[in-house]
Amino acid sequence: MSRYFSEKFAALTPYTPGEQPKDMQYIKLNTNESPFPPPVAVVEAAKNEAAKAQLYSDPECSLLVEKAAEYFGVKKTELLFTNGSDEILNFAFMAFCDKNTPAVFPDITYGFYSVFADLHGIPYKKIPLKSDFSIDHKEYLNGNATVFIANPNAPTGLALTLKQIEEILRANPDNVVVIDEAYVDFGGESCVPLIHKYDNLLVTQTFSKSRSLAGARLGVGIASESLIADLNTIKYSTNPYNVNRMTMAAGYAALCNQEYFDEKCKEICENREYTAIELKKLGFEVLDSKTNFLFVRSDKIGGKELYEKLKEKGVLVRHFTAPRIAEFNRVTIGTKRQMEICIQKIKEILEKQL
Amino acid sequence: MSRYFSEKFAALTPYTPGEQPKDMQYIKLNTNESPFPPPVAVVEAAKNEAAKAQLYSDPECSLLVEKAAEYFGVKKTELLFTNGSDEILNFAFMAFCDKNTPAVFPDITYGFYSVFADLHGIPYKKIPLKSDFSIDHKEYLNGNATVFIANPNAPTGLALTLKQIEEILRANPDNVVVIDEAYVDFGGESCVPLIHKYDNLLVTQTFSKSRSLAGARLGVGIASESLIADLNTIKYSTNPYNVNRMTMAAGYAALCNQEYFDEKCKEICENREYTAIELKKLGFEVLDSKTNFLFVRSDKIGGKELYEKLKEKGVLVRHFTAPRIAEFNRVTIGTKRQMEICIQKIKEILEKQL
Repeated sequence: MSRYFSEKFAALTPYTPGEQPKDMQYIKLNTNESPFPPPVAVVEAAKNEAAKAQLYSDPECSLLVEKAAEYFGVKKTELLFTNGSDEILNFAFMAFCDKNTPAVFPDITYGFYSVFADLHGIPYKKIPLKSDFSIDHKEYLNGNATVFIANPNAPTGLALTLKQIEEILRANPDNVVVIDEAYVDFGGESCVPLIHKYDNLLVTQTFSKSRSLAGARLGVGIASESLIADLNTIKYSTNPYNVNRMTMAAGYAALCNQEYFDEKCKEICENREYTAIELKKLGFEVLDSKTNFLFVRSDKIGGKELYEKLKEKGVLVRHFTAPRIAEFNRVTIGTKRQMEICIQKIKEILEKQL
Repeated sequence: MSRYFSEKFAALTPYTPGEQPKDMQYIKLNTNESPFPPPVAVVEAAKNEAAKAQLYSDPECSLLVEKAAEYFGVKKTELLFTNGSDEILNFAFMAFCDKNTPAVFPDITYGFYSVFADLHGIPYKKIPLKSDFSIDHKEYLNGNATVFIANPNAPTGLALTLKQIEEILRANPDNVVVIDEAYVDFGGESCVPLIHKYDNLLVTQTFSKSRSLAGARLGVGIASESLIADLNTIKYSTNPYNVNRMTMAAGYAALCNQEYFDEKCKEICENREYTAIELKKLGFEVLDSKTNFLFVRSDKIGGKELYEKLKEKGVLVRHFTAPRIAEFNRVTIGTKRQMEICIQKIKEILEKQL
């Protein structure tokens, strides 16, 4: 920290992205990426725009917004695209929280929520998950705080029902409820249609997971026109050209090729079921995932130990150190072949434990 | 504005990007883009990365940073890449200004500086340009404020000398001085080498202008290791994967093809000289530009009127409404052919005035 750094950030601890080791080739099951590349049409669309990159991108993302409005069944003015969904989440913390409007979210969830709050000096409360690691939605009623809930939640993979979300929305008429649906396409229920019923609902989604575009960085916020207008005020005061040409075109082409992604999501869900069954056979506790990852623990081996031994064997999973979940690992679902290898390596590790 | 919007933004006026009209094809001389597309190698590099877009981009931008360190003659730890230079400027306002450390910048400069300050609740002072529209560098000595200077300045096109910048740096040992070199490659003198002499200097550059990548969004901050570490704290608390794969590869390929851009910059400078001479022949006052635009006014026609009449004739330039510069227009330098047409249209407009 330099002597010029604003003292309000003296205690700020940034987010730690999942490791991207360069020492060897891993089976990378640690950052919830898709194992499938985007289809050729997406690559071609990005290329065509790269050839015009001397011109600024459209700050309104007009074509993409038009296509997405059709896809999500909302109005164009109910959408805002961002540089990954981290950016729309950051905008939401800025727009709808402040010293007088705290944020509230689960103790175990996407680790960035508390970082955004700290960054902007926003007070926040973490509500413990229940002992089964599910979100106790009754704890989010009438809190006088802006609610942030990942649904399905990460890293647990567990989902709330739309009925539970509606209860939260109804109980917080004076506060925004942000539902982060990064993983919704792997078996969750989207609450996008509820934006027409609740003007305090902001849904965020990403093209990183189910649409194979983590490296392109494309997120979207979906909400009532007035919430989107607020978020646009933040966007146009931060980075009007926040989505570049190639990504915008890739996102558009992705929405035009939704069958491809639907198929791949189905395949990932099948691989998830396969992996869950195999891990249970090995004695693992496997939370009921509606996502492209499994959150698992075994009483035969510690969470950290399993993570380290898998890494030695060339399989990277994500281990978190928070005490409540230190015995777990989050395993991204890859191809069937990758999951077979992962299971095989876990078997080898467990056998050596005996 | 919704009733949920934080009241601290009640008076926030966002930045207005240059217009991107869709009603007809214009000769677009209004947003300082390059008239030249990026070379094929840049397009191919972006395409190759799009094919791997299912994987997150490298948050450290390792390869790009390595190449840029070589290009700028600095250490890898003295660089930070961002989603356009707007993002590095935003980070700088966050990191180095606060309620107790105001910002200071010219009254006529990049319009985003005051928006960033307003966004973050940072007090600021605008220092009037001299009557010849140059920056009075003596006004920036010992100000107890974080200094933001675009050099060359926009929309005037005028540049300070390195000697003047050094005076500012020496007079502000306890404050950061940000030199925004968005346009430096068109005849300005870069102060990048000064980062090794002054630990309070942050230089920002963009790939949008001289490297034909406005639509790819790539900016960079260059400063002492400790300032870059501070800015990284903000980045990793905002958007760790802020630069996408395609843009990162395009930036890398651009640095590998610097001769192409050097040639194009030379051509733009020649077209600028041609345009300046022609406009002076028509009686225009033309400020001495070190950029890819000219800032011009005529006593034969009002600034707004010229802008509107040129637009009717299919030539788009940028007109600002601030009283001091309302009689000016900022004309981006395009190809020789584009500038010939622009001059021709201005001639036609002036003839009708008689």
